[in-house]
Formats: sequence, C-alpha cells, structure tokens
Amino acid sequence: MPNPTAAILIIGDEILTGRTREGNAWHLAGELTKAGIDLVQIRVIGDDHATITAAVRELSGAVDHLFTSGGIGPTHDDITADAVAEAFGRGIGVREDARALLAAHYALRGQDLTEARLRMARIPDGATLIDNPASTAPGFTIGNCHVMAGVPEVFKAMVASVLPTLRGGRPLLSRSLLMEAPESTVADALRTVAEAHPDVSFGSYPFTRDGRFGTNLVARSTDPEALDAAWAALKAAFPEGQ
Amino acid sequence: MPNPTAAILIIGDEILTGRTREGNAWHLAGELTKAGIDLVQIRVIGDDHATITAAVRELSGAVDHLFTSGGIGPTHDDITADAVAEAFGRGIGVREDARALLAAHYALRGQDLTEARLRMARIPDGATLIDNPASTAPGFTIGNCHVMAGVPEVFKAMVASVLPTLRGGRPLLSRSLLMEAPESTVADALRTVAEAHPDVSFGSYPFTRDGRFGTNLVARSTDPEALDAAWAALKAAFPEGQ
Repeated sequence: MPNPTAAILIIGDEILTGRTREGNAWHLAGELTKAGIDLVQIRVIGDDHATITAAVRELSGAVDHLFTSGGIGPTHDDITADAVAEAFGRGIGVREDARALLAAHYALRGQDLTEARLRMARIPDGATLIDNPASTAPGFTIGNCHVMAGVPEVFKAMVASVLPTLRGGRPLLSRSLLMEAPESTVADALRTVAEAHPDVSFGSYPFTRDGRFGTNLVARSTDPEALDAAWAALKAAFPEGQ
Repeated sequence: MPNPTAAILIIGDEILTGRTREGNAWHLAGELTKAGIDLVQIRVIGDDHATITAAVRELSGAVDHLFTSGGIGPTHDDITADAVAEAFGRGIGVREDARALLAAHYALRGQDLTEARLRMARIPDGATLIDNPASTAPGFTIGNCHVMAGVPEVFKAMVASVLPTLRGGRPLLSRSLLMEAPESTVADALRTVAEAHPDVSFGSYPFTRDGRFGTNLVARSTDPEALDAAWAALKAAFPEGQ
C-alpha cells in the first residue's frame, strides 16, 4: 500500500512580504517524513478569502491530507476558518464545546470572553476539534483538511495532537555522506551509484562553509535493506566521505 | 500603475522531507517587497520533471515574474533546466557563451570541464543568462521565468544580478508596534483602527517569549502619507506599545 500523501498550506501576508521566516512547514515536513506520509507540496499564500478558498479546494482534492497554518486567531485579519468553511461548502458559527474551552481558559485568568476571543470558537459545521495544549483555542479538522495556528509553539502542539490520529505509512529513511568537494567533482561517480540502485533516491546538496564548497550526498528509501545496500555502494565510491 | 506581481517556485526533495530549512524564498520575498514587486505565492515542489513543468506553466501564466530556485547543478538530480525548457516549448543544449564561462572558470583552477560540469552550460533556446559572481555557472531567464540556483550564496548573487533589470513598483512600507499582551486583548482596538484606515493593511502577529504571549501589530502601505496617518492612530490606540 503506498504511503498517504500530504500538502501544507501556509497562510499569511507576513511570509510573502519577507517579514517572517517561515518555519512551521519545515517542522511538519520532518514529522510527516517520520510518520510515513509523503509531502508533495508546500504553498504560501496571503490573507485573502478567495485565494484561501481556492487553494484549500485545489490541494485538498489532490492529496490525502491538507495541513494549514495561520489565520485562526482573534483579530480581523484571521479569516482562515471562514475561507475553509466555504471551501467545503459548510456553515460556520460559535460552537459550544469550543466556547466552553475558551470560557474556562479566560475564567481561570480572571479575564472576560470578549467578542474578539469568541471568534476563536467559530468552527465550520461538522468539523472535529484539534486539541491545543499550548494556548487552548482549538484547531479543527474538516474533511481531509487540518486547520492549525501559525504561532510556532501552538502549531507544534496541534501537530502533536493530530498526527497520531492519522494512518501512517513507511517512514522515509535517509543517510547522508559529507564530501569536502564541490558538487561537480562527485557528480559522475554519484550518477553511477544511483543508476545501480534505482529503488533508492539519491540527492546531492552543495553548500559553502568558510568560502569552500562542500556537498552532502543523501540516499533515501522506505526500504531499510535497499538503503543499506545503496549506502555501502556510496561509501565504497566515496571512501573520503564523512 | 499597479505593482508587478511575482511567484517563487522552490524545487527540491530536501525541503519536502524536512532535511533543509528553506531560506531562499525568505530572502527574495524581502527583496521583492523593497523593489515594489508584489509576491503572491511561494510554492515548494519535489525533483520531478512533470511536476516542475506543470508548476512553471501554471505560475508563469499567473504572475508577471516567476523566480525558481534549485536543481540547476551538475548532478543527475538537477533536472530544472530541462523541465523549464519543456514548459516554454523550447529546446535545450549546451550554449557556447555558457560553456566559455565554465571553461575559463575550471581552467583557472587547473580542472577539466567534465561532462558533469558541462551540464551547467545547458540553457534553453532563446534564454538570457543570469550572471553568477559566486560560482560562475549561470542562471537564465526564459520568458518571464528567472531560473536560479538553490545554494543560498549563489541564489543571493543571482537575485542581485537579475532584480535590477526588472521594472519595479512602489515599495511596500511597513511599521511595527510591539505589544506585551496576547493578541486577543488588542484585537478590538486594532479592528477599530483598521476600519478607520481602509487604505492601509493591518496585520497582527502573536509570538511567545519566555513563556509569555506578545503581539506585533504591523501596518503596511505603498503610500507613505497614509502609512504615517495609520501609524499615528495605532500609537494613539496603544500608547503602551513599543
């Protein structure tokens, strides 16, 4: 059975203007790889209702799981929940279980459940709540779309809540060999190894350090034995690698 | 005249598996904002020929400028140039001016222009070269698609080569106010300010530091006077902001 597939949709003008360096997709990408869910696309879009609705429709139709990040807070620019509801043709309103979570949270702090705070209890009809141990206000799953917050600590807490509920596949395993040489000097031998191990994926990632070019050679497979064989071949071809 | 629009296409399995934290889009997003070019989407896809071709066709048709990063090196997994050529219906082959650049580069170092290195001189028919002062092997522009390397130093050098050749628009200006308060406590007053300044875009970005929630309030506009007025209103509404 092939691994389930996934896409990540990051929602927020602050990424597109360069204000914020995105990191949630990086975190989730690593978690999905460990879970055996194949990530096929990451997309970043702005805080625009029609753009969000169209992207959710397109991506949720193309993969087994769509994960979104951003735009489910208490402010006027938090429009993700409404756009996702529309993408799935559902209504949206304050839900009592979500309201109860928030009411208890703010009561503990002696604060009122203001209109702005209550916005975070607006959940599309028929969705399932995603637990948020970091700051209470829940995410939600509707259809195959898991809607999570953009604040990194909250996003990570929601990922930890939702990922164990999903069917995983075979984790993608990888091994990496560091070469103190530019990519072009390792290319021919790498191709030969790759062609001899067609069931393993080989990548080559050049980098610079202290002004010198180096290259990481990476072998990836969901099959541990195939990866072992490819790794042995890689080490034999590049005995100077670390 | 409205600002030109742009999309960024990041190509590489290493991003989708979580191995590498992407940073090129972050860098270019900031540069585009300064240049007055409106970034509308960032997309990350894997090293797959058909996927690259389809994404280049879709995005280059949707924006004024498409910038790509990754997959134009000397190894077997560098397939971007071929995929972009196909997306634009062009042939591809070793081009003499690109070959000459590489030949001079390797001759200086006493190295041969091997078959792998020569792959970096394969340029789609009719493209314009993008200068690469960091490591010589050029990028290229074909149609409205600017194809650049994935290594951050090289990517930045290519961005610096190509951006000044493009028509810019009005830079997006922004001002930020830091509040030591969770987003939900500033939401109502922020909405009031935002509604009074419909020509300015207001964003609200919560964060945590030392376990406490804070919020950055950001006002954005291409109109300096409108931004000044919005900023004054924001400071008046939140005198405790920094």
